[in-house]
Amino acid sequence: MLGRDRVMTAERALGLLLESLASRKTRVSKIGIERALGMVCAEPVIAAEDVPAFARSTVDGYAVRAEDTFGATETMPAYLNLSAEVFMGEQAAVTITDDIACKIPTGGMLPVGADAAVMFEHVQVIDNKMIEVMKAVAPGENVIQPGEDVKNGEPVLMKGSRIRPQDIGACAGIGAMEVKVFERPVVSIISTGDEIVSAKQKPDIGQIRDTNSYTIAAMVTEAGGVPVRKGIFRDDYALIRDAVQGAMGDSDAIAVSGGTSVGTKDMIARIIGDIGNPGILFHGVSLKPGKPVIGGVMNGVPIFGLPGHPAAVSVCFDIFIRPILDLLSGLEDRPSRRLRGIVRARLSRNVSSSQGREEHIRTMIEEREDGLWAVPILGKSGLISTLVKADGTFVIPVNRNGIEKGELVDVRLF
Amino acid sequence: MLGRDRVMTAERALGLLLESLASRKTRVSKIGIERALGMVCAEPVIAAEDVPAFARSTVDGYAVRAEDTFGATETMPAYLNLSAEVFMGEQAAVTITDDIACKIPTGGMLPVGADAAVMFEHVQVIDNKMIEVMKAVAPGENVIQPGEDVKNGEPVLMKGSRIRPQDIGACAGIGAMEVKVFERPVVSIISTGDEIVSAKQKPDIGQIRDTNSYTIAAMVTEAGGVPVRKGIFRDDYALIRDAVQGAMGDSDAIAVSGGTSVGTKDMIARIIGDIGNPGILFHGVSLKPGKPVIGGVMNGVPIFGLPGHPAAVSVCFDIFIRPILDLLSGLEDRPSRRLRGIVRARLSRNVSSSQGREEHIRTMIEEREDGLWAVPILGKSGLISTLVKADGTFVIPVNRNGIEKGELVDVRLF
Repeated sequence: MLGRDRVMTAERALGLLLESLASRKTRVSKIGIERALGMVCAEPVIAAEDVPAFARSTVDGYAVRAEDTFGATETMPAYLNLSAEVFMGEQAAVTITDDIACKIPTGGMLPVGADAAVMFEHVQVIDNKMIEVMKAVAPGENVIQPGEDVKNGEPVLMKGSRIRPQDIGACAGIGAMEVKVFERPVVSIISTGDEIVSAKQKPDIGQIRDTNSYTIAAMVTEAGGVPVRKGIFRDDYALIRDAVQGAMGDSDAIAVSGGTSVGTKDMIARIIGDIGNPGILFHGVSLKPGKPVIGGVMNGVPIFGLPGHPAAVSVCFDIFIRPILDLLSGLEDRPSRRLRGIVRARLSRNVSSSQGREEHIRTMIEEREDGLWAVPILGKSGLISTLVKADGTFVIPVNRNGIEKGELVDVRLF
Repeated sequence: MLGRDRVMTAERALGLLLESLASRKTRVSKIGIERALGMVCAEPVIAAEDVPAFARSTVDGYAVRAEDTFGATETMPAYLNLSAEVFMGEQAAVTITDDIACKIPTGGMLPVGADAAVMFEHVQVIDNKMIEVMKAVAPGENVIQPGEDVKNGEPVLMKGSRIRPQDIGACAGIGAMEVKVFERPVVSIISTGDEIVSAKQKPDIGQIRDTNSYTIAAMVTEAGGVPVRKGIFRDDYALIRDAVQGAMGDSDAIAVSGGTSVGTKDMIARIIGDIGNPGILFHGVSLKPGKPVIGGVMNGVPIFGLPGHPAAVSVCFDIFIRPILDLLSGLEDRPSRRLRGIVRARLSRNVSSSQGREEHIRTMIEEREDGLWAVPILGKSGLISTLVKADGTFVIPVNRNGIEKGELVDVRLF
C-alpha cells in the first residue's frame, strides 16, 4: 500500500523488517533471579514441588474438623477441647479427632485430621482446655491446600514474558534461583553529519552539538537494549561504510543518525545496499515527522537510517526500532503490556494533516475539571525543546486529513 | 476518618507518613548524562548558550530573501541568481542581496542577508547560474532562528522531573554533560517469620521459602530505589530490633516483611515504637488485602511492617512505599507520569466488597471485539500465583459495597 508521494506506509515498512528478521535467534543466558527484573524469559520455569507443600491456615485461629462446627452459632456454639498449639515453621505434633481444636497462627501447618480453621473473632475461650466456636466453617475454609498456589509440574513463568517483581517472587517460592533469559540486544549508534560535533565540544559557527546519539542511546536502554555510541563520522562514504561494517560484528542492530541532506541520505542507502543482504527494505515512508527514514537488513542485522530532526528520531524509534528490539529481545508479551503508557484525552484544538500520511503530533496532557485534554505542540520537528515540553504523542491516521477539537485521541506517553 | 473496624483509611495513613517526612532532605550527586536516565533532576539545568547559535534551514533547498519571492507562482516564477553553495558545518561564505539565492542543505547555516529557504520541490534549476522559484516564502519560512530551540538562560530540565531520553538529548545539545540528581533511596528489606527459610534452601515440613523479600526488592528497583535484602530473622524481639536498628544506619527506608501472626505483628509495632521518634503512625488500615499493615517513622527513617500475604505486599507497596520512595527520590513530576499504566476496562462480573474498606482486586485484562474487559481473579491473597496471572489491580472504593458487571474500572497495570 502506497501513501502520498507513492512511498510506503509505516505499517508496511515495519512488516517488511519483521518478516526479514523472523528467523533470527536471540542469545540465551542463565542469570540469578535477583538480576532478572525486566529481562525476557527464554525457557519456561516449571515448579518441581508443590507450593505450599502442606495445608496452611490463612488466619490466626483454631484448626478444627469442619464437621465439628456445623450448626454452630453465637447462641448455640460448638464446644471443642483444646490440644497442643501449632507453632510456626514446625510440623503440628497433634492429630485432630472428634471435637478437638488446636490454636494455629496464619501460615501455620494444619495438623493431621483438621480440614479448616476458625478465626479468633468467632471463638470464645472458656479456659485453657476448651473453646466455644460461634460460627460454622466449611471443609477447606481459611486453608490453603497443598499445591494450591503452585502445583508440581506447572509453569510459573512463560517463555517470552517480561519478568516482573511478582514473577521473581514466584521463582523464589519454588526455589528456582536462576532463569534462562534472552540477552539484551546490543544497538550500535553511529552519528553522521559534517555539522555535528561532540556534545562535549564548543561548536564553531555553523556546527551543532550531537544530541541524537544521546537520545537514541537512552531510548535503547528504556526499550531493554544495550546502546553503544560509536562516535561521530563525517559524511564520507568510506568512513561511514567502515563504521557500519565494524558495528555489524558486535551489534544486534545499528542506528545511523543524521544524514539529513539529500546527498547523505542517498549515501547511507547506498552503503546499506553495498554491504549486506537483502540490504534496503524501505527508503522513505508516508510518515510525518520521519518521512526520509531508511530501513534495511544486512546479513541478519537490522539497520536504520534516521532523519536528523529530534522529533523524527523519536517517532522513528517508536515505530520501527522499539518493535524490532522487542522481537530481538524474544518478547511475546501479554497484550496488557502494549496498553501501558496510553491515555485517552480530548483534543484541545483542530489539527490538520494531509491524507496519505500518518502524522505524529507531540502533545502536552492537561488535567482539567472535565477530564484529560491533549494540547498539541505545533513546533518544528527540528526542535528538541518541543519533545522536552511534550508528555507524549498522538497519531493522525493515514486516511484522515485532521482531527477536530473535542475528539478523543490516544496519547502514547513518553 | 475511620473505616470499618474503626481503623484508619489508607489515604489518611499515607497522609500521616508524608507529613512526617515532609522536611526530609535527599542526598544529591552529580552524574554524567549518559547515566541519568530515570533519575530525578535535583537542580534545574540552564542553557548557557542559544541553540541553535545561528539560523538554520529546515529543508534541502535555497536560502533567499523572502521578499524576492513574493508573488512567485508556477506560471509567474521569480528568477534568482545563484551564488556559491552553503556546506554543512561551515559558515556561509556568501552574503545574500537582491535576487540572489544559494543552495543550502537541511541544517545548513543561513548566509547573511537571507531570511528564508525555498524547498527544492518549488524550484526549477535553469542552469548553474539561475533558478526559478515557483512558490513564495514568508520571512522566516523553513528556518530555525538562533535560540528558537533553547534560549540562553532558559531551563532545559526542571528540578524534580524524572529524566527521559529526550531530556538527556537536550542536555547534550547545550553541552551540559553532567546533571545534579537525587540519589536513589536505599531500602532495607528485613524478612521475618519462624516458618520462613531462604529460597535457596529446601524447606522442611511446616516451612516455606522466602518469596516476599525478592518481590519487594524488585518493586523497589522498579520504583527507582536500591534494595538491600538483609536476610531472614526469627520472630524474636531482640533479633528483629537489632536488625531494624542496624538498617537505620544505612537505609532511607525499611520494609519488614512477614510477621503475619498476631504476636509477631505486635512485636514489630513494639520495636518501631521503642526505637524511634515518632514511632508508629498507623497499625491497621481499612484496606483489603493489607489490613494489618504498619507504618511508622523512626528519627526520619520511614518503616513499614508488611503483612505476609504476597497480594497484600503488592498492594501495600503501591499504596504506601511507592509514594514514599517518590518523595525520597525528590520527584515532583508532571501529572502525566501518574497516568502511565492505568487502563479503563469493563468489569466482566459483579464483585462485592464491604463498605468501609478499600478493596484491591487482582484482574486480568482481555481485549475483546467490543473493547477491554477486566476479568477479576478472586483467589486468596496468600497465593502468589494470583499475582503472576494478573495484569493489574483495580479498586473498589471505601464507600462502595461492590462494582457491577459492565461498569468501567481503572486498572493499574503491573
